[in-house]
Amino acid sequence: MNISNIDLSTYPNSEKIHVEGSRRDIRVGMRRVKQYPTVKIEGGKRVEYPNAPVVLYDTSGAYTDPSVTIDINRGLPDVRSKWIEERGDTVTLDAITSEYGRARLADRSLDAIRFPSLPRPRVGKPGRRVTQMHYARQGVITPEMEYVAIRENLNNAELGIPTHVTPEFVREEIAAGRALIPANINHPEAEPMIIGRNFSVKINTNIGNSALSSGIEEEVAKAVWSCYWGGDTLMDLSTGDNIHETREWIIRNCPVPVGTVPIYQALEKVNGKVADLTWEIYRDTLIEQCEQGVDYFTIHAGVTKDHAEIVKGRLTGCVSRGGSIMMQWCQIHNAESFLYTHFDEICEILSSYDVAISLGDGMRPGSTHDANDESQFLELDMLGKLCLKAWEHDVQVMIEGPGHVPMNKIMENMERELKSCHEAPFYTLGPLTTDIAPAYDHITSAIGGAIIGSLGTAMLCYVTPKEHLSLPDLNDVREGVITYKIAAHAADLAKNYPGASVRDNALSKARYEFRWKDQFNLSLDPEKARRYYVESRRNAPDADDRFCTMCGPNFCAMRISQNIADKCDE
Amino acid sequence: MNISNIDLSTYPNSEKIHVEGSRRDIRVGMRRVKQYPTVKIEGGKRVEYPNAPVVLYDTSGAYTDPSVTIDINRGLPDVRSKWIEERGDTVTLDAITSEYGRARLADRSLDAIRFPSLPRPRVGKPGRRVTQMHYARQGVITPEMEYVAIRENLNNAELGIPTHVTPEFVREEIAAGRALIPANINHPEAEPMIIGRNFSVKINTNIGNSALSSGIEEEVAKAVWSCYWGGDTLMDLSTGDNIHETREWIIRNCPVPVGTVPIYQALEKVNGKVADLTWEIYRDTLIEQCEQGVDYFTIHAGVTKDHAEIVKGRLTGCVSRGGSIMMQWCQIHNAESFLYTHFDEICEILSSYDVAISLGDGMRPGSTHDANDESQFLELDMLGKLCLKAWEHDVQVMIEGPGHVPMNKIMENMERELKSCHEAPFYTLGPLTTDIAPAYDHITSAIGGAIIGSLGTAMLCYVTPKEHLSLPDLNDVREGVITYKIAAHAADLAKNYPGASVRDNALSKARYEFRWKDQFNLSLDPEKARRYYVESRRNAPDADDRFCTMCGPNFCAMRISQNIADKCDE
Repeated sequence: MNISNIDLSTYPNSEKIHVEGSRRDIRVGMRRVKQYPTVKIEGGKRVEYPNAPVVLYDTSGAYTDPSVTIDINRGLPDVRSKWIEERGDTVTLDAITSEYGRARLADRSLDAIRFPSLPRPRVGKPGRRVTQMHYARQGVITPEMEYVAIRENLNNAELGIPTHVTPEFVREEIAAGRALIPANINHPEAEPMIIGRNFSVKINTNIGNSALSSGIEEEVAKAVWSCYWGGDTLMDLSTGDNIHETREWIIRNCPVPVGTVPIYQALEKVNGKVADLTWEIYRDTLIEQCEQGVDYFTIHAGVTKDHAEIVKGRLTGCVSRGGSIMMQWCQIHNAESFLYTHFDEICEILSSYDVAISLGDGMRPGSTHDANDESQFLELDMLGKLCLKAWEHDVQVMIEGPGHVPMNKIMENMERELKSCHEAPFYTLGPLTTDIAPAYDHITSAIGGAIIGSLGTAMLCYVTPKEHLSLPDLNDVREGVITYKIAAHAADLAKNYPGASVRDNALSKARYEFRWKDQFNLSLDPEKARRYYVESRRNAPDADDRFCTMCGPNFCAMRISQNIADKCDE
Repeated sequence: MNISNIDLSTYPNSEKIHVEGSRRDIRVGMRRVKQYPTVKIEGGKRVEYPNAPVVLYDTSGAYTDPSVTIDINRGLPDVRSKWIEERGDTVTLDAITSEYGRARLADRSLDAIRFPSLPRPRVGKPGRRVTQMHYARQGVITPEMEYVAIRENLNNAELGIPTHVTPEFVREEIAAGRALIPANINHPEAEPMIIGRNFSVKINTNIGNSALSSGIEEEVAKAVWSCYWGGDTLMDLSTGDNIHETREWIIRNCPVPVGTVPIYQALEKVNGKVADLTWEIYRDTLIEQCEQGVDYFTIHAGVTKDHAEIVKGRLTGCVSRGGSIMMQWCQIHNAESFLYTHFDEICEILSSYDVAISLGDGMRPGSTHDANDESQFLELDMLGKLCLKAWEHDVQVMIEGPGHVPMNKIMENMERELKSCHEAPFYTLGPLTTDIAPAYDHITSAIGGAIIGSLGTAMLCYVTPKEHLSLPDLNDVREGVITYKIAAHAADLAKNYPGASVRDNALSKARYEFRWKDQFNLSLDPEKARRYYVESRRNAPDADDRFCTMCGPNFCAMRISQNIADKCDE
């Protein structure tokens, strides 16, 4: 297999750098964008003033590292195994534990689509909790914590901004549950990253096939593409064929944490018959995915038996796939949700792998009409209780949030989440601020995402232009990621996150000085910015001159303004 | 000439309706979207429940009226001449007054590109102020005021929402300066619309060629395209050749108010030499454009002699074209801006045609770094003073606002504007909430636009994906308009603007009930929404079924949720 259909070379004048930590194997990858000098004419002479390079947070992993040869059939280099081994609290198993996992492995007809070199699964020794939260509460600063601390301090050394994130601060935030590092011991290829409101705002991207679409190679390409453009975590929401094998390929090639919704696969295992779902099937699915290396699970344990009655007053009922499945199961069996009744056991399993829980919001509003209603907030209170339970097991937690919410109702969501859920990180889908723009819901939701991010939401789940209409293709993934990088970065600026404005200021200075290439190179999508510019200059021979086609030479405010400034200086 | 390159038939299942006012010639065009019935199976029988049509605010004028034959060589039908004549305070001139206008008319080489049937210009009788503000202050409710009152009360009659906007309320808002109806007596083709924070949020679109691009036919197509997708007003920012003739074509074919920045054309008249600009040339340009029918002028009268010194501390200086021109003029001549010194005379001229002033923000920040700085707010205070002066002449006013502003600094802009500018309507460009996304600045700015709209900004100036890079093409105009319709509508929802949520709720209900066609037809861009959906179903034969490719049949939350609801009902 290969991913030659995606171009991973569109960041010109950039270089991969690695910042080392207290030990040599803590090497945090970053992207450094070099800049051209500012050229001035002084006393008739051309004088060059250098512009400092700008160091950017980098989620693309080895894919932009020229020293690494990429082969998706072999997977990414290992980042964390040594750290995990050194802790001495895990063992490597000889074989897969999950029954389903073993059955898939034994099925020779799957050899052709199987990832070639399956790693042996690792698990915590009996009774040992191997989670970052556990270590944090014990006062231990792990290499993962130091890694994310370095990662959050962008541009600091070079520009004299004080280091604001220390490894000890990271430890404190994780111990308090205000942040998490999703880091399954079976996904050592992932580069540690942190999700919490006292850090930079992160974005998640969703990929995955459905029964109607797409194969493994395409999904791996989407995963890599998402990381290349800036996705911080990746959810594989596949519901079609060969979910198990697809996931293996994705995880082995994914430099960011991977999340899933295990109920989707459990439902596939019973051929889509909700009635046939059982705790045992779900439990085996959890173990199967823990062993593969999934870093966080969305679990809709807050959807309980009573919800079917409450949502009846809604305009759009329940729009969460996981939530609606569990609601139907409760109704069919007239029983309480097994996700709720077995929640302690779930936590016990997850603590042996350090898989985090993303408590699913099965009752999120599917329309602005249903925002902030009883169903939604009742579930939120329930998620707060489950959060405390998970923390009792040292399991890391984040809380999923809406959905469709008009702007005037966004703040209440954030305030209630912090209160009901004990400051656990909030992870929201948008929210979409109006319902009237299918095909543009990346935009309706980026508005809400930026607002709720500025108010304290730790991670935003992206929405692509295809939301509500179909699955995203590669181009939609790019569009969705860039749109959400905008929302997250706008939120960082609004939060006055240290170092966040460095990139804006550098790009604005480049723009003002007509350093077009620097303007493009510092942007979120250099290729597209450059393309738009170049296309418009086809009939204008003097490209790279001191104006653009928008205003033409006589009407360039920046040129006039600079002329004035130059004159004042003389 | 023709505009056959744009498709004006992409609103399926819609019909043009006209709501009549107190007199038969007040006929307010609206678009009514019909819906399919909700189909349920009850007791084994198929039962249909009708869904009410949704009436939408419509800016497309005669272009979507099947009873009108469009010919851009003849221009649009006249809407307002009778009302203007009836007031008896204007006269029709035999010829153009403007020297430049007369010279253009005499130039036979321009015959080929001239609009064929030039109307005779109209002007207020000596000493008469013919502005909507003047009438409002006299206690007169004009047909224009009644027209916009009807226009703002969408969906009310059919859905039992109380009429919230009355003609008297419109009159009061205009008399107080809190709202304006840009309505030059020489642009009777325009359908009256109102800009003010107690009305729905409006959007402006910019078109116009530069020295490097595009011809008349293309600009007319862009103008019509902008109105078709939802632009409420249109600014012609042309700076290239034949500005005079291009503008004539646009105005005669434009169903919405047209704005310009007269200093652009004045500068063209002196071949781009700022030093050669004079009050006399500018004055003749004002009269030329007043006689053509421009509805509002952006005038950068707040940029004064002192500004050149103040902006020196900025990262990106002055990024307003008009502002930088005036700043340079002041510097060259070591004199105060003629826009400032002749402001009373400007107002006197404008009051004879009812051209509104949009007080330009020459000192708007061109980067998030420069937001809310001394230059910006000093100018804002000055604009407040000029606003009072204009109101002394009964000239309608709005205040232009930034620009590039991080989210945490947006509210201060709105609060200061209301205070400094005596509640005159605020008209902002975005603001862009980060600088790092050229090629996506429609999105960086829609975030800021939605926020500032919800706080009270009356009109948002759109930004297209090409901002900072080149002039927008037809596709960019569409993308920019839809993006800003989203921002404006999200703001209306947040303001709880009566009737605004009707469209959201209808679309959400259609979505929940799998009435795909209704979902598309009620959306801002039915063609694109439908296209995305259909493309994904190419390999799925059962289109129009009760799921989409996003989740596939087994995982459709809405289907499951409906099944549960249906069961509960039984």
